[in-house]
Amino acid sequence: MDDIAGLINQVQNAYARCIDNGALEEWPDFFEEHCTYRITTADNFAQGLEAGVIFANSRGMLRDRVTSLREANIYERHVYRHFLGQPWIASHEAGEVRSETSFFVARIMRDGATDVYATGCYIDTWRLNGGAPKLKDRIVVCDSSRFDTLLALPL
Amino acid sequence: MDDIAGLINQVQNAYARCIDNGALEEWPDFFEEHCTYRITTADNFAQGLEAGVIFANSRGMLRDRVTSLREANIYERHVYRHFLGQPWIASHEAGEVRSETSFFVARIMRDGATDVYATGCYIDTWRLNGGAPKLKDRIVVCDSSRFDTLLALPL
Amino acid sequence: MDDIAGLINQVQNAYARCIDNGALEEWPDFFEEHCTYRITTADNFAQGLEAGVIFANSRGMLRDRVTSLREANIYERHVYRHFLGQPWIASHEAGEVRSETSFFVARIMRDGATDVYATGCYIDTWRLNGGAPKLKDRIVVCDSSRFDTLLALPL
Repeated sequence: MDDIAGLINQVQNAYARCIDNGALEEWPDFFEEHCTYRITTADNFAQGLEAGVIFANSRGMLRDRVTSLREANIYERHVYRHFLGQPWIASHEAGEVRSETSFFVARIMRDGATDVYATGCYIDTWRLNGGAPKLKDRIVVCDSSRFDTLLALPL
Repeated sequence: MDDIAGLINQVQNAYARCIDNGALEEWPDFFEEHCTYRITTADNFAQGLEAGVIFANSRGMLRDRVTSLREANIYERHVYRHFLGQPWIASHEAGEVRSETSFFVARIMRDGATDVYATGCYIDTWRLNGGAPKLKDRIVVCDSSRFDTLLALPL
Repeated sequence: MDDIAGLINQVQNAYARCIDNGALEEWPDFFEEHCTYRITTADNFAQGLEAGVIFANSRGMLRDRVTSLREANIYERHVYRHFLGQPWIASHEAGEVRSETSFFVARIMRDGATDVYATGCYIDTWRLNGGAPKLKDRIVVCDSSRFDTLLALPL
Protein backbone atom coordinates (compact mmCIF):
# COMPACT_ATOMS: atom_id res chain seq x y z
CA MET A 1 0.00 0.00 0.00
CA ASP A 2 1.43 3.37 -0.86
CA ASP A 3 1.53 6.18 1.69
CA ILE A 4 -1.63 7.97 0.70
CA ALA A 5 -3.72 4.79 0.70
CA GLY A 6 -2.28 3.98 4.12
CA LEU A 7 -3.17 7.43 5.41
CA ILE A 8 -6.74 7.22 4.12
CA ASN A 9 -7.03 3.71 5.51
CA GLN A 10 -6.08 4.99 8.96
CA VAL A 11 -8.63 7.78 9.01
CA GLN A 12 -11.33 5.48 7.65
CA ASN A 13 -10.69 3.11 10.52
CA ALA A 14 -10.83 5.95 13.03
CA TYR A 15 -14.15 7.04 11.49
CA ALA A 16 -15.61 3.53 11.79
CA ARG A 17 -14.31 3.17 15.34
CA CYS A 18 -15.88 6.46 16.35
CA ILE A 19 -19.35 5.32 15.31
CA ASP A 20 -18.98 1.73 16.49
CA ASN A 21 -17.89 2.96 19.92
CA GLY A 22 -20.90 5.25 20.10
CA ALA A 23 -18.81 8.43 20.21
CA LEU A 24 -21.24 10.16 17.87
CA GLU A 25 -20.33 13.67 19.03
CA GLU A 26 -16.88 13.19 17.51
CA TRP A 27 -18.22 12.07 14.15
CA PRO A 28 -18.65 15.56 12.62
CA ASP A 29 -14.97 16.24 13.31
CA PHE A 30 -14.04 13.92 10.47
CA PHE A 31 -15.52 16.52 8.11
CA GLU A 32 -14.45 19.96 7.04
CA GLU A 33 -16.60 22.90 8.11
CA HIS A 34 -17.85 23.23 4.52
CA CYS A 35 -18.66 19.73 3.45
CA THR A 36 -21.32 17.56 1.97
CA TYR A 37 -22.54 14.27 3.36
CA ARG A 38 -25.03 12.26 1.41
CA ILE A 39 -26.51 8.78 1.69
CA THR A 40 -27.95 7.48 -1.53
CA THR A 41 -28.58 4.22 -3.34
CA ALA A 42 -26.55 2.67 -6.12
CA ASP A 43 -29.54 2.98 -8.44
CA ASN A 44 -30.00 6.69 -7.79
CA PHE A 45 -26.29 7.30 -7.97
CA ALA A 46 -26.01 5.49 -11.32
CA GLN A 47 -28.83 7.61 -12.69
CA GLY A 48 -27.15 10.81 -11.54
CA LEU A 49 -29.98 11.68 -9.18
CA GLU A 50 -28.82 14.27 -6.70
CA ALA A 51 -31.41 13.67 -4.02
CA GLY A 52 -30.18 11.40 -1.31
CA VAL A 53 -31.87 9.64 1.53
CA ILE A 54 -29.94 11.89 3.84
CA PHE A 55 -28.22 15.12 2.89
CA ALA A 56 -26.16 17.64 4.82
CA ASN A 57 -23.98 20.44 3.51
CA SER A 58 -22.20 21.69 6.59
CA ARG A 59 -20.59 20.29 9.70
CA GLY A 60 -23.26 22.10 11.68
CA MET A 61 -25.95 20.00 10.05
CA LEU A 62 -24.04 16.87 11.02
CA ARG A 63 -23.90 18.08 14.61
CA ASP A 64 -27.64 18.71 14.52
CA ARG A 65 -28.18 15.21 13.32
CA VAL A 66 -26.23 13.77 16.22
CA THR A 67 -28.24 15.89 18.65
CA SER A 68 -31.48 14.55 17.16
CA LEU A 69 -30.27 11.00 17.45
CA ARG A 70 -29.29 11.54 21.07
CA GLU A 71 -32.63 13.09 21.93
CA ALA A 72 -34.45 10.20 20.35
CA ASN A 73 -32.33 7.78 22.39
CA ILE A 74 -31.73 5.88 19.22
CA TYR A 75 -28.19 5.16 20.26
CA GLU A 76 -29.51 2.93 23.01
CA ARG A 77 -31.47 0.81 20.63
CA HIS A 78 -28.74 -0.60 18.47
CA VAL A 79 -25.08 -0.46 17.61
CA TYR A 80 -23.14 -0.78 14.40
CA ARG A 81 -19.99 -2.61 13.51
CA HIS A 82 -18.24 -1.37 10.37
CA PHE A 83 -15.91 -3.36 8.14
CA LEU A 84 -14.02 -1.58 5.42
CA GLY A 85 -12.14 -2.63 2.33
CA GLN A 86 -8.87 -1.06 1.34
CA PRO A 87 -9.36 2.43 -0.08
CA TRP A 88 -8.95 2.73 -3.81
CA ILE A 89 -7.27 6.02 -4.64
CA ALA A 90 -8.94 7.58 -7.69
CA SER A 91 -6.84 10.77 -7.68
CA HIS A 92 -4.46 12.74 -5.52
CA GLU A 93 -3.57 16.30 -6.42
CA ALA A 94 -3.34 19.75 -4.88
CA GLY A 95 -3.92 18.51 -1.36
CA GLU A 96 -7.08 16.66 -2.34
CA VAL A 97 -7.61 12.91 -2.48
CA ARG A 98 -10.54 11.13 -4.05
CA SER A 99 -11.06 7.59 -2.87
CA GLU A 100 -13.56 4.76 -2.97
CA THR A 101 -13.88 2.31 -0.09
CA SER A 102 -16.24 -0.64 0.26
CA PHE A 103 -18.11 -0.91 3.51
CA PHE A 104 -20.13 -3.52 5.28
CA VAL A 105 -22.10 -2.58 8.38
CA ALA A 106 -23.55 -5.12 10.76
CA ARG A 107 -26.30 -3.89 13.05
CA ILE A 108 -26.78 -5.38 16.48
CA MET A 109 -30.20 -4.76 17.99
CA ARG A 110 -30.83 -4.55 21.71
CA ASP A 111 -32.43 -7.98 21.72
CA GLY A 112 -29.17 -9.40 20.40
CA ALA A 113 -30.18 -10.00 16.79
CA THR A 114 -27.45 -9.19 14.29
CA ASP A 115 -28.06 -8.48 10.64
CA VAL A 116 -26.29 -7.14 7.58
CA TYR A 117 -27.49 -3.57 7.82
CA ALA A 118 -25.87 -2.09 4.76
CA THR A 119 -23.18 -2.70 2.19
CA GLY A 120 -21.89 -0.23 -0.31
CA CYS A 121 -19.14 2.18 -1.15
CA TYR A 122 -17.91 5.45 0.28
CA ILE A 123 -17.09 7.86 -2.52
CA ASP A 124 -14.98 10.47 -0.81
CA THR A 125 -13.07 13.65 -1.34
CA TRP A 126 -10.52 14.30 1.41
CA ARG A 127 -8.60 17.50 2.15
CA LEU A 128 -5.07 17.05 3.38
CA ASN A 129 -4.20 19.88 5.71
CA GLY A 130 -1.11 18.56 7.41
CA GLY A 131 -3.08 16.82 10.19
CA ALA A 132 -5.52 13.98 9.68
CA PRO A 133 -7.33 14.12 6.33
CA LYS A 134 -10.80 15.66 6.58
CA LEU A 135 -13.82 14.80 4.48
CA LYS A 136 -14.83 17.53 2.08
CA ASP A 137 -17.46 15.30 0.48
CA ARG A 138 -18.73 11.87 1.36
CA ILE A 139 -21.29 10.06 -0.74
CA VAL A 140 -22.44 6.87 0.97
CA VAL A 141 -23.67 4.72 -1.91
CA CYS A 142 -25.70 1.84 -0.51
CA ASP A 143 -25.96 -1.25 -2.66
CA SER A 144 -29.49 -1.91 -1.62
CA SER A 145 -32.38 0.45 -2.09
CA ARG A 146 -34.11 -1.06 0.89
CA PHE A 147 -32.90 0.28 4.17
CA ASP A 148 -34.19 1.62 7.32
CA THR A 149 -33.45 5.32 7.49
CA LEU A 150 -35.43 6.20 10.56
CA LEU A 151 -33.16 4.31 12.89
CA ALA A 152 -30.02 5.24 11.08
CA LEU A 153 -26.88 6.03 12.94
CA PRO A 154 -24.37 7.66 10.62
CA LEU A 155 -22.87 5.41 8.00
CA MET B 1 2.96 -6.05 5.73
CA ASP B 2 5.92 -6.88 3.55
CA ASP B 3 6.10 -5.75 -0.07
CA ILE B 4 4.81 -8.86 -1.73
CA ALA B 5 1.78 -9.14 0.57
CA GLY B 6 1.05 -5.47 -0.13
CA LEU B 7 1.28 -6.06 -3.87
CA ILE B 8 -1.05 -9.06 -3.75
CA ASN B 9 -3.40 -7.13 -1.49
CA GLN B 10 -3.63 -4.37 -4.08
CA VAL B 11 -4.45 -6.64 -6.97
CA GLN B 12 -6.98 -8.56 -4.88
CA ASN B 13 -8.76 -5.32 -4.14
CA ALA B 14 -8.75 -4.36 -7.80
CA TYR B 15 -10.22 -7.79 -8.62
CA ALA B 16 -13.01 -7.35 -6.07
CA ARG B 17 -13.70 -3.81 -7.24
CA CYS B 18 -13.96 -4.96 -10.86
CA ILE B 19 -16.71 -7.44 -10.06
CA ASP B 20 -18.51 -5.26 -7.50
CA ASN B 21 -18.63 -2.40 -10.01
CA GLY B 22 -20.10 -4.72 -12.64
CA ALA B 23 -17.10 -4.37 -14.98
CA LEU B 24 -17.23 -8.07 -15.78
CA GLU B 25 -15.51 -7.70 -19.15
CA GLU B 26 -12.33 -6.68 -17.32
CA TRP B 27 -12.41 -9.66 -14.99
CA PRO B 28 -10.56 -12.11 -17.30
CA ASP B 29 -7.67 -9.63 -17.50
CA PHE B 30 -6.69 -10.54 -13.96
CA PHE B 31 -5.70 -13.96 -15.30
CA GLU B 32 -2.90 -15.18 -17.50
CA GLU B 33 -3.77 -16.52 -20.94
CA HIS B 34 -3.05 -20.04 -19.71
CA CYS B 35 -4.73 -20.28 -16.37
CA THR B 36 -7.12 -22.30 -14.32
CA TYR B 37 -10.12 -20.99 -12.45
CA ARG B 38 -12.08 -23.31 -10.28
CA ILE B 39 -14.88 -22.93 -7.74
CA THR B 40 -15.16 -25.79 -5.33
CA THR B 41 -16.27 -26.56 -1.79
CA ALA B 42 -14.12 -27.00 1.28
CA ASP B 43 -15.34 -30.59 1.58
CA ASN B 44 -14.38 -31.48 -1.98
CA PHE B 45 -11.11 -29.63 -1.69
CA ALA B 46 -10.20 -31.44 1.53
CA GLN B 47 -10.91 -34.78 -0.15
CA GLY B 48 -8.71 -33.87 -3.10
CA LEU B 49 -11.57 -34.03 -5.57
CA GLU B 50 -10.62 -32.25 -8.74
CA ALA B 51 -14.09 -31.56 -10.04
CA GLY B 52 -15.31 -28.11 -9.21
CA VAL B 53 -18.66 -26.43 -9.43
CA ILE B 54 -17.17 -24.23 -12.10
CA PHE B 55 -14.01 -24.91 -14.04
CA ALA B 56 -12.14 -23.01 -16.72
CA ASN B 57 -8.64 -23.57 -18.04
CA SER B 58 -8.04 -20.57 -20.25
CA ARG B 59 -8.75 -16.87 -20.27
CA GLY B 60 -10.93 -17.48 -23.30
CA MET B 61 -13.25 -19.66 -21.24
CA LEU B 62 -13.53 -16.88 -18.68
CA ARG B 63 -14.49 -14.45 -21.44
CA ASP B 64 -17.11 -16.89 -22.67
CA ARG B 65 -18.54 -17.07 -19.19
CA VAL B 66 -18.89 -13.30 -19.02
CA THR B 67 -20.63 -13.29 -22.39
CA SER B 68 -23.09 -15.90 -21.16
CA LEU B 69 -23.81 -13.91 -18.04
CA ARG B 70 -24.41 -10.76 -20.07
CA GLU B 71 -26.72 -12.53 -22.47
CA ALA B 72 -28.72 -13.94 -19.60
CA ASN B 73 -29.01 -10.43 -18.14
CA ILE B 74 -27.95 -11.90 -14.84
CA TYR B 75 -25.91 -8.82 -14.07
CA GLU B 76 -29.14 -6.85 -13.75
CA ARG B 77 -30.55 -9.12 -11.17
CA HIS B 78 -28.07 -8.75 -8.37
CA VAL B 79 -24.75 -7.31 -7.37
CA TYR B 80 -21.95 -8.50 -5.14
CA ARG B 81 -19.87 -6.79 -2.54
CA HIS B 82 -16.56 -8.50 -1.72
CA PHE B 83 -14.61 -8.21 1.52
CA LEU B 84 -11.16 -9.70 1.71
CA GLY B 85 -8.79 -10.59 4.47
CA GLN B 86 -5.09 -9.91 4.24
CA PRO B 87 -3.34 -12.31 1.89
CA TRP B 88 -1.25 -14.99 3.54
CA ILE B 89 1.87 -15.61 1.46
CA ALA B 90 2.56 -19.35 1.28
CA SER B 91 5.58 -19.06 -1.01
CA HIS B 92 7.36 -16.65 -3.29
CA GLU B 93 9.99 -17.86 -5.70
CA ALA B 94 11.00 -17.63 -9.32
CA GLY B 95 8.48 -14.92 -10.10
CA GLU B 96 5.59 -16.96 -8.68
CA VAL B 97 3.63 -16.26 -5.52
CA ARG B 98 1.23 -18.62 -3.81
CA SER B 99 -1.23 -16.97 -1.48
CA GLU B 100 -4.38 -17.66 0.48
CA THR B 101 -6.94 -14.94 1.09
CA SER B 102 -10.23 -15.17 2.98
CA PHE B 103 -13.25 -13.73 1.25
CA PHE B 104 -16.76 -12.80 2.23
CA VAL B 105 -19.25 -11.90 -0.46
CA ALA B 106 -22.55 -10.19 0.24
CA ARG B 107 -25.18 -10.45 -2.46
CA ILE B 108 -27.72 -7.70 -2.96
CA MET B 109 -30.81 -8.74 -4.89
CA ARG B 110 -32.86 -6.37 -7.01
CA ASP B 111 -35.58 -6.27 -4.39
CA GLY B 112 -33.07 -4.93 -1.90
CA ALA B 113 -32.54 -8.07 0.17
CA THR B 114 -28.94 -8.60 1.23
CA ASP B 115 -27.50 -11.92 2.28
CA VAL B 116 -24.19 -13.58 2.99
CA TYR B 117 -23.68 -15.17 -0.40
CA ALA B 118 -20.42 -16.98 0.15
CA THR B 119 -17.44 -17.17 2.45
CA GLY B 120 -14.26 -19.02 1.81
CA CYS B 121 -10.69 -18.77 0.71
CA TYR B 122 -8.93 -17.96 -2.54
CA ILE B 123 -6.01 -20.32 -3.06
CA ASP B 124 -3.98 -18.57 -5.70
CA THR B 125 -0.86 -18.81 -7.78
CA TRP B 126 0.21 -15.44 -9.17
CA ARG B 127 2.78 -14.72 -11.88
CA LEU B 128 4.84 -11.59 -11.41
CA ASN B 129 5.74 -10.15 -14.78
CA GLY B 130 6.82 -6.66 -13.88
CA GLY B 131 3.32 -5.21 -14.13
CA ALA B 132 0.38 -6.17 -11.96
CA PRO B 133 0.50 -9.80 -10.81
CA LYS B 134 -1.68 -12.10 -12.90
CA LEU B 135 -3.50 -15.19 -11.75
CA LYS B 136 -2.07 -18.42 -13.08
CA ASP B 137 -4.40 -20.50 -10.92
CA ARG B 138 -7.26 -19.56 -8.67
CA ILE B 139 -9.15 -22.10 -6.62
CA VAL B 140 -12.18 -20.52 -4.96
CA VAL B 141 -12.81 -22.76 -1.96
CA CYS B 142 -16.27 -22.03 -0.59
CA ASP B 143 -16.87 -22.88 3.05
CA SER B 144 -20.42 -23.96 2.41
CA SER B 145 -21.46 -26.71 0.07
CA ARG B 146 -24.78 -25.01 -0.46
CA PHE B 147 -24.66 -22.22 -2.94
CA ASP B 148 -26.48 -21.01 -5.89
CA THR B 149 -24.40 -21.58 -8.96
CA LEU B 150 -26.90 -20.69 -11.61
CA LEU B 151 -26.96 -17.04 -10.70
CA ALA B 152 -23.31 -16.84 -9.98
CA LEU B 153 -21.31 -13.84 -10.95
CA PRO B 154 -17.61 -14.61 -10.71
CA LEU B 155 -16.24 -15.03 -7.23
CA MET C 1 0.11 1.77 8.71
CA ASP C 2 3.07 2.12 11.04
CA ASP C 3 5.29 -0.82 11.83
CA ILE C 4 3.66 -1.92 15.05
CA ALA C 5 0.14 -1.87 13.56
CA GLY C 6 1.48 -3.91 10.65
CA LEU C 7 3.03 -6.43 13.02
CA ILE C 8 -0.15 -6.79 15.06
CA ASN C 9 -2.16 -7.05 11.86
CA GLN C 10 -0.01 -9.97 10.74
CA VAL C 11 -0.37 -11.95 13.92
CA GLN C 12 -4.12 -11.27 14.05
CA ASN C 13 -4.43 -12.73 10.58
CA ALA C 14 -2.41 -15.77 11.55
CA TYR C 15 -4.69 -16.21 14.59
CA ALA C 16 -7.82 -16.05 12.43
CA ARG C 17 -6.32 -18.39 9.86
CA CYS C 18 -5.43 -20.94 12.55
CA ILE C 19 -9.05 -21.19 13.72
CA ASP C 20 -10.62 -20.97 10.27
CA ASN C 21 -8.39 -23.79 9.05
CA GLY C 22 -9.40 -25.92 12.02
CA ALA C 23 -5.86 -26.06 13.45
CA LEU C 24 -7.21 -25.63 16.96
CA GLU C 25 -4.22 -27.29 18.65
CA GLU C 26 -2.08 -24.35 17.49
CA TRP C 27 -4.44 -21.74 18.87
CA PRO C 28 -3.03 -21.66 22.46
CA ASP C 29 0.41 -20.87 21.01
CA PHE C 30 -0.78 -17.35 20.22
CA PHE C 31 -0.88 -16.77 23.99
CA GLU C 32 1.77 -16.41 26.64
CA GLU C 33 2.02 -19.12 29.29
CA HIS C 34 0.53 -16.71 31.83
CA CYS C 35 -2.37 -15.10 30.07
CA THR C 36 -6.03 -14.35 30.32
CA TYR C 37 -8.64 -15.09 27.71
CA ARG C 38 -12.14 -13.90 28.24
CA ILE C 39 -15.30 -13.74 26.13
CA THR C 40 -17.81 -11.22 27.34
CA THR C 41 -20.56 -8.97 26.04
CA ALA C 42 -20.41 -5.26 25.33
CA ASP C 43 -23.04 -4.66 28.02
CA ASN C 44 -21.10 -6.52 30.70
CA PHE C 45 -17.86 -4.95 29.61
CA ALA C 46 -19.33 -1.44 29.77
CA GLN C 47 -20.58 -2.14 33.28
CA GLY C 48 -17.17 -3.34 34.38
CA LEU C 49 -18.41 -6.83 35.16
CA GLU C 50 -15.51 -9.21 35.37
CA ALA C 51 -17.40 -12.40 34.75
CA GLY C 52 -17.23 -13.52 31.17
CA VAL C 53 -19.05 -16.14 29.21
CA ILE C 54 -15.77 -17.98 28.94
CA PHE C 55 -12.71 -17.39 31.07
CA ALA C 56 -9.24 -18.89 31.13
CA ASN C 57 -6.16 -17.68 32.93
CA SER C 58 -3.41 -19.88 31.57
CA ARG C 59 -2.36 -21.42 28.31
CA GLY C 60 -3.02 -24.80 29.88
CA MET C 61 -6.68 -23.95 30.26
CA LEU C 62 -6.82 -23.01 26.60
CA ARG C 63 -5.31 -26.39 25.70
CA ASP C 64 -7.90 -28.10 27.87
CA ARG C 65 -10.62 -26.27 26.04
CA VAL C 66 -9.36 -27.47 22.68
CA THR C 67 -9.24 -31.03 23.99
CA SER C 68 -12.86 -30.75 25.13
CA LEU C 69 -13.93 -29.41 21.77
CA ARG C 70 -12.15 -32.25 19.98
CA GLU C 71 -13.71 -34.87 22.21
CA ALA C 72 -17.14 -33.41 21.63
CA ASN C 73 -16.49 -33.53 17.87
CA ILE C 74 -17.75 -30.00 17.72
CA TYR C 75 -15.16 -29.17 15.08
CA GLU C 76 -17.01 -31.39 12.64
CA ARG C 77 -20.25 -29.58 13.05
CA HIS C 78 -19.32 -26.13 11.83
CA VAL C 79 -16.51 -23.88 10.75
CA TYR C 80 -15.78 -20.23 11.23
CA ARG C 81 -14.53 -17.57 8.89
CA HIS C 82 -13.04 -14.50 10.59
CA PHE C 83 -12.79 -11.01 9.14
CA LEU C 84 -10.79 -8.41 10.99
CA GLY C 85 -10.52 -4.67 10.87
CA GLN C 86 -7.20 -2.89 11.10
CA PRO C 87 -5.83 -2.91 14.64
CA TRP C 88 -6.06 0.35 16.51
CA ILE C 89 -2.97 0.78 18.66
CA ALA C 90 -3.96 2.20 22.05
CA SER C 91 -0.46 2.15 23.52
CA HIS C 92 3.00 0.75 22.93
CA GLU C 93 5.60 0.83 25.64
CA ALA C 94 8.09 -1.38 27.41
CA GLY C 95 7.60 -4.27 25.01
CA GLU C 96 3.84 -4.26 25.50
CA VAL C 97 1.20 -3.25 22.96
CA ARG C 98 -2.45 -2.64 23.67
CA SER C 99 -4.71 -2.83 20.65
CA GLU C 100 -8.35 -2.97 19.67
CA THR C 101 -9.47 -4.83 16.56
CA SER C 102 -12.99 -5.27 15.19
CA PHE C 103 -13.98 -8.76 14.23
CA PHE C 104 -16.77 -10.35 12.28
CA VAL C 105 -17.18 -14.11 12.34
CA ALA C 106 -19.35 -16.02 9.91
CA ARG C 107 -20.35 -19.52 10.92
CA ILE C 108 -20.94 -22.20 8.34
CA MET C 109 -22.97 -25.14 9.57
CA ARG C 110 -22.65 -28.64 8.17
CA ASP C 111 -25.91 -28.29 6.28
CA GLY C 112 -24.41 -25.35 4.42
CA ALA C 113 -26.27 -22.54 6.17
CA THR C 114 -24.12 -19.47 6.82
CA ASP C 115 -24.89 -16.85 9.41
CA VAL C 116 -23.30 -13.88 11.12
CA TYR C 117 -22.11 -15.67 14.23
CA ALA C 118 -20.56 -12.80 16.13
CA THR C 119 -19.29 -9.28 15.75
CA GLY C 120 -17.31 -7.33 18.27
CA CYS C 121 -13.90 -6.16 19.28
CA TYR C 122 -10.73 -7.81 20.52
CA ILE C 123 -9.22 -5.80 23.34
CA ASP C 124 -5.71 -7.13 23.54
CA THR C 125 -2.45 -6.80 25.36
CA TRP C 126 0.46 -8.24 23.40
CA ARG C 127 3.98 -9.00 24.59
CA LEU C 128 6.75 -8.38 22.11
CA ASN C 129 9.55 -10.84 22.72
CA GLY C 130 11.53 -10.57 19.54
CA GLY C 131 9.52 -13.23 17.72
CA ALA C 132 5.82 -13.02 16.90
CA PRO C 133 3.84 -10.99 19.46
CA LYS C 134 2.05 -13.16 22.01
CA LEU C 135 -1.24 -12.42 23.72
CA LYS C 136 -0.90 -11.63 27.39
CA ASP C 137 -4.60 -10.74 27.64
CA ARG C 138 -7.44 -11.00 25.18
CA ILE C 139 -10.91 -9.79 25.97
CA VAL C 140 -13.34 -10.78 23.24
CA VAL C 141 -16.12 -8.22 23.57
CA CYS C 142 -19.14 -9.43 21.60
CA ASP C 143 -21.56 -6.77 20.43
CA SER C 144 -24.54 -9.00 20.97
CA SER C 145 -25.53 -10.56 24.25
CA ARG C 146 -27.19 -13.40 22.42
CA PHE C 147 -24.83 -16.04 21.30
CA ASP C 148 -24.44 -19.69 21.36
CA THR C 149 -21.67 -20.63 23.73
CA LEU C 150 -22.10 -24.33 23.75
CA LEU C 151 -20.97 -24.79 20.21
CA ALA C 152 -18.34 -22.15 20.39
CA LEU C 153 -15.03 -22.64 18.71
CA PRO C 154 -12.55 -20.07 19.98
CA LEU C 155 -13.17 -16.52 18.90
